[in-house]
Amino acid sequence: MLGQMMDRPLLLPQIMEHAARNYRDQEIVSLTPEGAIHRYTYVDALKRIKQLSNVLTRMGIKKGDRVATIAWNTHRHFEIYYATAAIGAVCHTINPLLGPEQVAYVANHAEDKAMFFDTTFAPLVAPIADYIPSIETYVAMTDDAHLPEFSKPGLAAYETLMAAESQEFEFPEFDERTACGLCYTSGTTGNPKGVLFSHRSNYLHALTANQSNVMGTGEDGVLLAVVPMFHVNAWGVPYSIPMSGGKLVFPGPRLDGEGLYNIIEQEQCTASLGVPTIWLGLINYMKENNKKFSSLQYSCVGGSAMSEYILRTFQEDYGVEMYQGWGMTEMSPLGTVNRRSRNFDQLSEDEQIAVQLKQGRAVSGVDMRIVGADGAVLPNDGMSSGHLQVRGPWIISEYYKYDGETLTADGWFDTGDVATIDEDGYMHITDRAKDVIKSGGEWVSSIDIENAALSHPGVARAGVIGVYHEKWQERPLLVVVREPGTEATEAEIIDFLKGRLAKIALPNAVEFIDEMPLGATGKILKTKLREMFKDYRLSA
Amino acid sequence: MLGQMMDRPLLLPQIMEHAARNYRDQEIVSLTPEGAIHRYTYVDALKRIKQLSNVLTRMGIKKGDRVATIAWNTHRHFEIYYATAAIGAVCHTINPLLGPEQVAYVANHAEDKAMFFDTTFAPLVAPIADYIPSIETYVAMTDDAHLPEFSKPGLAAYETLMAAESQEFEFPEFDERTACGLCYTSGTTGNPKGVLFSHRSNYLHALTANQSNVMGTGEDGVLLAVVPMFHVNAWGVPYSIPMSGGKLVFPGPRLDGEGLYNIIEQEQCTASLGVPTIWLGLINYMKENNKKFSSLQYSCVGGSAMSEYILRTFQEDYGVEMYQGWGMTEMSPLGTVNRRSRNFDQLSEDEQIAVQLKQGRAVSGVDMRIVGADGAVLPNDGMSSGHLQVRGPWIISEYYKYDGETLTADGWFDTGDVATIDEDGYMHITDRAKDVIKSGGEWVSSIDIENAALSHPGVARAGVIGVYHEKWQERPLLVVVREPGTEATEAEIIDFLKGRLAKIALPNAVEFIDEMPLGATGKILKTKLREMFKDYRLSA
Repeated sequence: MLGQMMDRPLLLPQIMEHAARNYRDQEIVSLTPEGAIHRYTYVDALKRIKQLSNVLTRMGIKKGDRVATIAWNTHRHFEIYYATAAIGAVCHTINPLLGPEQVAYVANHAEDKAMFFDTTFAPLVAPIADYIPSIETYVAMTDDAHLPEFSKPGLAAYETLMAAESQEFEFPEFDERTACGLCYTSGTTGNPKGVLFSHRSNYLHALTANQSNVMGTGEDGVLLAVVPMFHVNAWGVPYSIPMSGGKLVFPGPRLDGEGLYNIIEQEQCTASLGVPTIWLGLINYMKENNKKFSSLQYSCVGGSAMSEYILRTFQEDYGVEMYQGWGMTEMSPLGTVNRRSRNFDQLSEDEQIAVQLKQGRAVSGVDMRIVGADGAVLPNDGMSSGHLQVRGPWIISEYYKYDGETLTADGWFDTGDVATIDEDGYMHITDRAKDVIKSGGEWVSSIDIENAALSHPGVARAGVIGVYHEKWQERPLLVVVREPGTEATEAEIIDFLKGRLAKIALPNAVEFIDEMPLGATGKILKTKLREMFKDYRLSA
Repeated sequence: MLGQMMDRPLLLPQIMEHAARNYRDQEIVSLTPEGAIHRYTYVDALKRIKQLSNVLTRMGIKKGDRVATIAWNTHRHFEIYYATAAIGAVCHTINPLLGPEQVAYVANHAEDKAMFFDTTFAPLVAPIADYIPSIETYVAMTDDAHLPEFSKPGLAAYETLMAAESQEFEFPEFDERTACGLCYTSGTTGNPKGVLFSHRSNYLHALTANQSNVMGTGEDGVLLAVVPMFHVNAWGVPYSIPMSGGKLVFPGPRLDGEGLYNIIEQEQCTASLGVPTIWLGLINYMKENNKKFSSLQYSCVGGSAMSEYILRTFQEDYGVEMYQGWGMTEMSPLGTVNRRSRNFDQLSEDEQIAVQLKQGRAVSGVDMRIVGADGAVLPNDGMSSGHLQVRGPWIISEYYKYDGETLTADGWFDTGDVATIDEDGYMHITDRAKDVIKSGGEWVSSIDIENAALSHPGVARAGVIGVYHEKWQERPLLVVVREPGTEATEAEIIDFLKGRLAKIALPNAVEFIDEMPLGATGKILKTKLREMFKDYRLSA
């Protein structure tokens, strides 16, 4: 027997209608690529979203069509998110850090029908425009005065298209499972794979993020959206913040320490979220210039594990709660958060830090399990380490136009991480499954070694890979980029690690290189490292 | 094109699985009808829910079957909520304040297959047991030692049934729209009508309640569930609190001022929610005994409008944020909340109070509109007053087994209230549509007159109805129950009201009675008042 409740679909434009009705004077503030601050209210944003829906419709964009963006976090990118969703089209956010071949690859794979780009990225887009036949319209996200040079004729300015349209638009209703967004993972192997989000999944994700024990930014909150909108929906904040009535601040292209600090202070941001390297840049700027925060209360760190240094500096020096969030593009992205728990009062400060360095507990809606090499589900005992698998309404069922298997036979998504989960639900990623070093029968975490090595003052970057070993099958090789001006030796570093790692995890050798190979999202490209050291032989 | 996210249904048992995994030592505390405090963890609660799922299955309860409860807020009632849902059955919560005929009516209308009741209610259930043929099993929610006398053979004790079953139970998966709960509205006219909730609607409602700007109780929260579980799912807290990891406190039958105060202090409750009369009882106890709160931070008031006295006393004397929530059984029930807004700092204290006395702003997911007598949608200008209509995924589509029309032709639910909505989204109920007094072409709010009259020290209760008037068609009659020991006259009261009401709203007459007719939920029965004064003729 079914309940007798209204069969109302969860659709994203409802969020902006809610915001405009209830928080009419709340602001969205953007630093534009042109360098000016743009500010408007939710009421104005909704009008512009309707206007853009008319632009897209006139452009011939239909339900299901893919519309690409290559853009910073600005109000215009925000408008494209909502207007594409409003007409049932799909916003395909492209990471501008991809090389031109990869941009062309994903645009062709998605069969994008139009492409919107910030003027900054004209030099990236122009050379490949001839190689993406599906794209009928290119739009520069600016006004006529700032239109960049472009190879193809007919480049339109966003503001000129907007000016020609009405602000009246009735949002249509359709199935809440309708696709609204497409984001390709920048996998380290093979071609990028597309993740196709739906209205339902993004709406549920936003509701979950707004729970007070998850991100919980409310009407008083001022959120600085540092995570790029080309990165998994900017972790959902374009949806969660208007839903809760908070103020939304987009930093545009200014993601350096000074730029971030200035906008945090100027807009009195209370919360933010981003990857560790961003926070490192901010810390460096603040230390050098002896700055303090006057409004920031907490910040979410995700994308890769947070270091103890970032955690302690923010909490102890600046009084900002720094909490980890963990997720993946395939998870929309929210899987876990690690907010201070009610049990923290019973822990020493160091014990609290140890808990905070884990990835955290699953948010409601996300199921997690760890699975051994034999496929058996392992206990949540904090000890058993295995493949981390997840399940939930905002987790991928199938990659876009993909022939392979996306899920396990029983319907879980394997994250590719190796992790433990403890009795309190805390998940701790010990490594990527493919990076784990199989030393005899034991699994050694490459990440643990890297983190320990990074504590050495002479180590700027550290990457660990497994290399062939006659007796143990595989043993760790630590690859280091030195801090400029320092000269730590292999012996010094290994000595340093002896107090910090179990004997089995001590690297057998250290090699020094000048530059660490990094992927588009700033992660170490272990594939490149393995290639560089493919003929490496450990002595004895 | 549909998104490619997992098609995972939103099912209520997932909430308890989440709670047990992530907040294993968090407690559910109940004051039982036997007078003892019962406390257990979410882990134990989940085990007992599984055990009860086995009990229900063995009892022959199948998917879609209705299982009645007549019970206080306790851990056992909580277990029944979840175990019925877990097996796809429907928990039909019956209000014990209904008379025996009405209890029999709703149980027969629902065709309940089993009935669980607290021993307190054995005297209510026993006499009607012969008149509900569909019920195969009666269960007293106690142990063998406390089994009450009962007319029918085979009365089982809850704990005895539990002891016979295993704690292993695999929750099945099914359509998220599956019915899980049934609650009859205690309408003032006609037979009670059933509202059939679904897993989806209750799950979305809980997610929404947990947003930081709605109820937002987090892991640190300790919620006292004062609203009865026989009242619209106790406003959803059996779902929202475990979802967020808070501690849940059930006061059982102790809803008097002293009982509430004691449990708030003993369990260090931080939040609560309930109807105004409950808070009045608590205030009276605290004033008489010179008590203060040591933990309570905020409380939600709903069911009927909060008086300025309750608001000011809690906020000014006790430092507790008192905020209104508005909803209906047909809305699961959450429609609006009125948390302090970020704009409050710009308002004087009196202006803040004036805003707080409105019903508040719609929570995300709920659409509201006001409609004039001619069916036209009126503007949200704070002035236009009309029928309040709502729409959303946890709002009724159709009453259970009902022949009439539940919704408007265009799919909205008419609340039966007359209200305004202002530019900031604040909704203010001015009256029930059927209670509004049509004086010439104008609508006069009976509630405004009642509230003004209640400010008179000699008025204990006030009810206003429209009575026939030759010239104006209808004019207000104020019916008063005097405060014991006072002797206010008609002329004194009307004089008192002159400074407080517009001329058109001044009652034409005041009549005094000894006792106000009240319904099962404590609201004035205007139908009874109209009957009492049906031959009333206004002079001149």
